[in-house]
Amino acid sequence: MTVSIAYLGPPGTYSEAAAIAYVDQLQQDTGEECLLCPYPSISQTLRAVARSQAQRAVVPVENSLEGSVPMTLDAIWQLDNLQIQRALVLPISHALISPVPELSAIKTVYSHPQALAQCQGWLEQFLPWVQLIPTNSTTEAVQQLEGDRFAAAISSQRAAELYDLPIIAFPINDRPDNCTRFWVVSLQPSPGGAYTSLGFSVPSNLPGALSQPLQVFASRGINLSRIESRPTKRSLGEYLFFLDLECDSRKSSVESAFQELRSHTETLKIFGSYDFVAIKSD
Amino acid sequence: MTVSIAYLGPPGTYSEAAAIAYVDQLQQDTGEECLLCPYPSISQTLRAVARSQAQRAVVPVENSLEGSVPMTLDAIWQLDNLQIQRALVLPISHALISPVPELSAIKTVYSHPQALAQCQGWLEQFLPWVQLIPTNSTTEAVQQLEGDRFAAAISSQRAAELYDLPIIAFPINDRPDNCTRFWVVSLQPSPGGAYTSLGFSVPSNLPGALSQPLQVFASRGINLSRIESRPTKRSLGEYLFFLDLECDSRKSSVESAFQELRSHTETLKIFGSYDFVAIKSD
Repeated sequence: MTVSIAYLGPPGTYSEAAAIAYVDQLQQDTGEECLLCPYPSISQTLRAVARSQAQRAVVPVENSLEGSVPMTLDAIWQLDNLQIQRALVLPISHALISPVPELSAIKTVYSHPQALAQCQGWLEQFLPWVQLIPTNSTTEAVQQLEGDRFAAAISSQRAAELYDLPIIAFPINDRPDNCTRFWVVSLQPSPGGAYTSLGFSVPSNLPGALSQPLQVFASRGINLSRIESRPTKRSLGEYLFFLDLECDSRKSSVESAFQELRSHTETLKIFGSYDFVAIKSD
Repeated sequence: MTVSIAYLGPPGTYSEAAAIAYVDQLQQDTGEECLLCPYPSISQTLRAVARSQAQRAVVPVENSLEGSVPMTLDAIWQLDNLQIQRALVLPISHALISPVPELSAIKTVYSHPQALAQCQGWLEQFLPWVQLIPTNSTTEAVQQLEGDRFAAAISSQRAAELYDLPIIAFPINDRPDNCTRFWVVSLQPSPGGAYTSLGFSVPSNLPGALSQPLQVFASRGINLSRIESRPTKRSLGEYLFFLDLECDSRKSSVESAFQELRSHTETLKIFGSYDFVAIKSD
């Protein structure tokens, strides 16, 4: 049986790199055949799994420099039935891709806003005169070069290969330890593991409304490795909270923490317990 | 004396609308003359004040649908010496601007990614076939129309007037109560008021590292109206936390809370106490 895996395309994006690494792991572990399916947005990638058009999705959650990917949190909350199977950490090294002979000829640089932000210092030092133009993905940035002779794109080495274009500087990210975390999600129950992710809303905007839920974990010595707030989209000042905890929801002590948590929250959604797998860079 | 006010330009952006409303308030209150100065990015807008090139800056902090503006939080943390003077809440109504005679002729829609996200439902219903292209600002989207005969821009009514282009649909945001919060910052001490904003890092990633700081306020009945986490940019999993509290830092009970907070945090920065002012829509 072939496992179909949705990701944020087109081919050449870092999401594809994470999806390819996941497929390699899966084939080593289970020998399963995989088919990679690019989708044009994160919400469409996740909806493909929620509607059983694909069996798994690989989506970005958080970058070490630019922080969380709000679209992923919003979609996993709304879709309701997705469970996290695994987290992947991918090192990110950006390349400056262009057909121009030298840097001084570049007038425009295209890339995804997160990639532009991750190379901000390099751009200010070496290309202070250029116009920065945002694109929907790093691969789309490379596609823009076709119509613009004095432009460069910030994208992956793989995108340069796919589009047969030269890399004129690499790596150009301001921090060498730049990395992005991805989640693999599906409709199956999560496998269990060292991390648990969940989201909740609180009954009202009262003192302690957030400190009580956090106290549930602090009092049990369960470490909170991440917290994000997102607007409920009802009114300014009402939030959903997304937590990553260092614990396995299958343990009875953690189950009892979740029961206590229910009494302090309005809606509570557990997105699953899973392990982290680091991806080696090429 | 003329007060120079930096904002995220070019003219026609919602930041300009907030800055204009602030100038109106200031002139009513103090009679001071004001000069509006557009800057190309949020960090440059805030740096202009930090380096005394402008006396005040008006910057977006949070939208009711799309959440926080990470650039503003990162810059106010890094620049270190800025104090919040006032918060402004601006209702946001987006217009579809285009020279085309009817919707069916539109092939492309340009706008800032936040504005595209705020009109996602409308676009899926009325223009499902179009290509969505991100721009650096909603005004830049209108500027793109010059070179593209089959395009539309999502921007403000004021931008349509400034560029003398027709509005073909209004309002097109999915939620009528869409609004954005702005901060007015300067180098002067904040005036005091019902809200206090601060940021902190925690000593290490231990259980309770975040619940202890929150408990400081919960135990005193001080309401937390917002919490955001941002990466420290050192390594994945290390965060700065930004809190908005319903209290005035000039009160002695709040001062003692801040003293206790210092013992639970690594670095603590108080961005000031200030009041909220709602801006009426036109």
